[in-house]
Amino acid sequence: MVTAGIVGGTGYTGVELLRLLARHPHVRLHAITSRGEAGTPVADLFPSLRGAVDLAFVDPGEATLERCDVVFFATPNGICMQQVRPLLAAGVRVIDLAADFRIRDVATWETWYKMKHACPDLVADAVYGLPEMYRSRVRTSRLVANPGCYPTSVQLGFLPLIEAGAVDPDHLIADAKSGVSGAGRKAEVHTLFSEAADNFKAYGVPGHRHLPEIAQGLSAMAGRVVMPVFVPHLTPMIRGIHATLYARLIRPVDLQALYEQRFASEPFVDILPAGSHPDTRSVRGANTCRIAVHQLRGGETVVILSVIDNLVKGAAGQAVQNMNIMFDLPETAGLEGLALLP
Amino acid sequence: MVTAGIVGGTGYTGVELLRLLARHPHVRLHAITSRGEAGTPVADLFPSLRGAVDLAFVDPGEATLERCDVVFFATPNGICMQQVRPLLAAGVRVIDLAADFRIRDVATWETWYKMKHACPDLVADAVYGLPEMYRSRVRTSRLVANPGCYPTSVQLGFLPLIEAGAVDPDHLIADAKSGVSGAGRKAEVHTLFSEAADNFKAYGVPGHRHLPEIAQGLSAMAGRVVMPVFVPHLTPMIRGIHATLYARLIRPVDLQALYEQRFASEPFVDILPAGSHPDTRSVRGANTCRIAVHQLRGGETVVILSVIDNLVKGAAGQAVQNMNIMFDLPETAGLEGLALLP
Amino acid sequence: MVTAGIVGGTGYTGVELLRLLARHPHVRLHAITSRGEAGTPVADLFPSLRGAVDLAFVDPGEATLERCDVVFFATPNGICMQQVRPLLAAGVRVIDLAADFRIRDVATWETWYKMKHACPDLVADAVYGLPEMYRSRVRTSRLVANPGCYPTSVQLGFLPLIEAGAVDPDHLIADAKSGVSGAGRKAEVHTLFSEAADNFKAYGVPGHRHLPEIAQGLSAMAGRVVMPVFVPHLTPMIRGIHATLYARLIRPVDLQALYEQRFASEPFVDILPAGSHPDTRSVRGANTCRIAVHQLRGGETVVILSVIDNLVKGAAGQAVQNMNIMFDLPETAGLEGLALLP
Amino acid sequence: MVTAGIVGGTGYTGVELLRLLARHPHVRLHAITSRGEAGTPVADLFPSLRGAVDLAFVDPGEATLERCDVVFFATPNGICMQQVRPLLAAGVRVIDLAADFRIRDVATWETWYKMKHACPDLVADAVYGLPEMYRSRVRTSRLVANPGCYPTSVQLGFLPLIEAGAVDPDHLIADAKSGVSGAGRKAEVHTLFSEAADNFKAYGVPGHRHLPEIAQGLSAMAGRVVMPVFVPHLTPMIRGIHATLYARLIRPVDLQALYEQRFASEPFVDILPAGSHPDTRSVRGANTCRIAVHQLRGGETVVILSVIDNLVKGAAGQAVQNMNIMFDLPETAGLEGLALLP
Repeated sequence: MVTAGIVGGTGYTGVELLRLLARHPHVRLHAITSRGEAGTPVADLFPSLRGAVDLAFVDPGEATLERCDVVFFATPNGICMQQVRPLLAAGVRVIDLAADFRIRDVATWETWYKMKHACPDLVADAVYGLPEMYRSRVRTSRLVANPGCYPTSVQLGFLPLIEAGAVDPDHLIADAKSGVSGAGRKAEVHTLFSEAADNFKAYGVPGHRHLPEIAQGLSAMAGRVVMPVFVPHLTPMIRGIHATLYARLIRPVDLQALYEQRFASEPFVDILPAGSHPDTRSVRGANTCRIAVHQLRGGETVVILSVIDNLVKGAAGQAVQNMNIMFDLPETAGLEGLALLP
Repeated sequence: MVTAGIVGGTGYTGVELLRLLARHPHVRLHAITSRGEAGTPVADLFPSLRGAVDLAFVDPGEATLERCDVVFFATPNGICMQQVRPLLAAGVRVIDLAADFRIRDVATWETWYKMKHACPDLVADAVYGLPEMYRSRVRTSRLVANPGCYPTSVQLGFLPLIEAGAVDPDHLIADAKSGVSGAGRKAEVHTLFSEAADNFKAYGVPGHRHLPEIAQGLSAMAGRVVMPVFVPHLTPMIRGIHATLYARLIRPVDLQALYEQRFASEPFVDILPAGSHPDTRSVRGANTCRIAVHQLRGGETVVILSVIDNLVKGAAGQAVQNMNIMFDLPETAGLEGLALLP
Repeated sequence: MVTAGIVGGTGYTGVELLRLLARHPHVRLHAITSRGEAGTPVADLFPSLRGAVDLAFVDPGEATLERCDVVFFATPNGICMQQVRPLLAAGVRVIDLAADFRIRDVATWETWYKMKHACPDLVADAVYGLPEMYRSRVRTSRLVANPGCYPTSVQLGFLPLIEAGAVDPDHLIADAKSGVSGAGRKAEVHTLFSEAADNFKAYGVPGHRHLPEIAQGLSAMAGRVVMPVFVPHLTPMIRGIHATLYARLIRPVDLQALYEQRFASEPFVDILPAGSHPDTRSVRGANTCRIAVHQLRGGETVVILSVIDNLVKGAAGQAVQNMNIMFDLPETAGLEGLALLP
Repeated sequence: MVTAGIVGGTGYTGVELLRLLARHPHVRLHAITSRGEAGTPVADLFPSLRGAVDLAFVDPGEATLERCDVVFFATPNGICMQQVRPLLAAGVRVIDLAADFRIRDVATWETWYKMKHACPDLVADAVYGLPEMYRSRVRTSRLVANPGCYPTSVQLGFLPLIEAGAVDPDHLIADAKSGVSGAGRKAEVHTLFSEAADNFKAYGVPGHRHLPEIAQGLSAMAGRVVMPVFVPHLTPMIRGIHATLYARLIRPVDLQALYEQRFASEPFVDILPAGSHPDTRSVRGANTCRIAVHQLRGGETVVILSVIDNLVKGAAGQAVQNMNIMFDLPETAGLEGLALLP
């Protein structure tokens, strides 16, 4: 059994981690911390976990996290980098669901996240936890930077095209739509039901923090600098990301075969039959990324449709997948649950 | 033209007042106050008003509200009672959309609202602004307590039955369901989209502030103390209240005729044909209360279905209706807009 | 392994059965029938099942259902009674998720369901599959009538009160609210998104088919005829039923203890702490019924709040629970999945 | 007063026309036809119109539409072309809200709409009713082809850029998202609440009927053939279209000034301040198109955000606007209603 701890279990990625880990056959939950809710039984805050999670939130100072095999940080940006060093020193392996270790260039990170990085020396050490790109490095990593939700859907969608050198890397567009849970469980006016329901809008067009993360990933695939156009939108659903990706072919290629082959052995990437349109609910609650590939008439333009559940493959599920890889567990352990439809 | 001011225009009742007053043929908007947003153009906060409202929010201290004919308080509870006295002294007539003057018994008010009343002497002076009960008193009032949203739907639904002495006043049940906008535009976790969407729950079963208001109204109708059972619920829609009312007949009565006659001359109460089930969207954006009456087989139990838009007949629309009455304008002026369906 | 077949797998109860059975550790899916979709891979119709269900729909005539240990009917009312006899003759055990065998009085059934019963002799034989009432009879039954969704939530909510003789059985009210999936996957105008979203309404106030089923169940608990008032409502969410139940106490009783004791050994009924308000999402996708008990001030009136997922404890999950009981499997097998929140 | 008739008033564009025309100061409703609902009072089908529309649906054969000044066709595609000739002969002016007369090339129309055109000679005669492009021709037209919803949002969004020759017309992308009411009030599985709620998907990527209409409009602006990439999506809201448009600048231009000047005298196009993100609810129920313009860092790529209410500026509202122009009424008559927010 792997002994696991969670720092910051009161947000949506936290409760999603709890949902998955509470039923994971090889995991024992050791502690869940929360400064604000210390002492409160977890199931009081999240009645969906009644009968399955008996722990109460504990103050970070009393959590004895150093006794864990793995600690997940389901915290706001900037927390993990403050607390990770003693855990690593104690031999604990760490998976950060926030952004502290996602960007390899510290200056870029500091610009976008508007704070000084607390441990730039660890950034180079961290592995970006997108298993479809970095599985072998994840396996041996002691510090995994779990990818963002938009970056997961966009990178998986572009991956075969860019790796194959089939598209013009200077003209990539990612038009992405997210459910509201992507904004977290913070009390804010713009994510109130009466603001976000029956409404649709773009946001962050001049710049969004996931852009440098996406650009870094696509650049790694391409072996050169790639800076896509990225426009996120808020759509009135709870979970789900739908990325609509546009690229221009620079040589003939059998797109369907390219995608099917690239992901043939991936347990959590599903290439739909040609002509399909994935809907986000087909992955609601599941750790799957479903992708459909379209080549438009005339043929130059490729449209890729990529969907994930932002809280699962886009956050907690991918974190569990990374843990499975790190501890040589079956990669699908605890992640077999099927999507809830309808 | 009636010169109108609004105190606290940044919440949902505020923006709804603006939507209605901006197109009211007999009203000139003089000022809208907000401490937090002073200087911000109203249309920056509410782009739906672009081109229709040119005012900016002003600090309460600079609003010269004493020059208005009428001032609406679209504020949290406890504000109007602090500010109303100088306005009344200046001859301004006041409509409070909050609860400060709704409960005639000051001790009861202080118990439920958990504060000391700032001007108990004015409470007796205030008129409860439910035109279907108190139209003539509203006409001459200088201080109108605009009813709450639940109380409007419940009182109008029970009114004919209780006035006619047709039901047992000791066994009244109001099972009411509200859209989320009833909770206002405050940043709170429980009204986030991801908390309130695709979800349904009761709340406040042990006690809700609208209970004493409803009880006061029903008691006035009955001429004796009436204390109904009241259970509010939160339903995942933006606007709308649906009250399902249960009562027990104590004498035979033609219910359909009773309701049609009682409201025959009311411009904003619509009795549906026998056997109907009103939906909340049939009043979305409109100042109408639609009611259907059902007598169950066997005959003793009456089920009344009463729907309103909580922001219109349940708040801003009823306030405008009261203003129209107070200033001898046509009662429907500015309130002719039809419900938005679908 | 239990070999299972499904008749009529294209509706919501069908796909929910598939979701649960595909991951059930003791079940092998033998066949899924559909006249209209024969030949179509199940995962083409329901992409959420891709990779987990490899079967295609087969024509009922070619399904060799007689080789199954158990057959589920996820069909419209009136189908099971036409097809059940040869299956029973072949020794197959049958669970009908429709209403054909729920009502013991055939004349009552024919009145409400507006058709002639095809095998009234089997009605007496069938066991009503509410395990919390009839577990031992379910165990040995060859034909289980799986309860309706509203009846499950209402009966479980009233059960301890009525069994204990604590309330007046002549004054029971069930005000119930259902998500739209309860209406099934039929193309109908009133359940279109643009009709049902951002809207709330009652329906069936003069009479609903679940009323005789509820009345039969409550009568069995009380040992006398009980005819409650039942008002169903449609609420804009996909899954979930919230029943708000009103009853009048006729003797003092410790309600919280009564409920906790009655369901102490039930794996799928969860009594919340006193003062709670369950939300439907706390059981979204799970086979749990969560109940909260409130005694109002003054004390005579009891308000019970009972929530289920209409497709799980209200349909497919309860059917799997019944199957587990019938085949001496652990009652929770295949039903351990936690609710999806948010 | 203009005497107006509506053919096919039972769909969403029909009821929206009724909402607008019932309160239009210069219009008298003469007749509303429906084969299926003949004899039914309009307000029975649409209770939102109770008290405002007293007409009943009449059979098309008895509607005496030739006595109207204007007839609106709110019918499926292919109906208007069958019935328009005698109306025109009687001097009635016609506005078709369907697609029969939108595409000037009859062969193209027949390919996309999969039927033979019934009166190709009238196609050349018809005027495409996008007032921002063809106001003067609308004024004198006897047959107006009211634009589609997607085409309205996309064409208005691209108009200034293409007219000014500022972008490469070979690389235009329109990623558009529509509320579900765009699919109409037909009973279909894919637009059921339980299918479309809490879900997001693209559709029609290989080809959508609005593509040739958009291409025709952009080509007219550019003076050459333009074939954009167009990907429509279904988003879980009732009303609203959000078009996210991508183009590549080929010369420096002050985008904000370009847009503000182009639409300076347009009553129903609102250019937001630089840096804005319009939300669809800001036009819910209103005839306004709100547009924001973004030039991305680096500068080559332009992102235009354009929102409309698909049933108003995208259908019934634009039809009323065209009627106002045709009959020399104030262009905003009957269209002053403000958006419903929240």
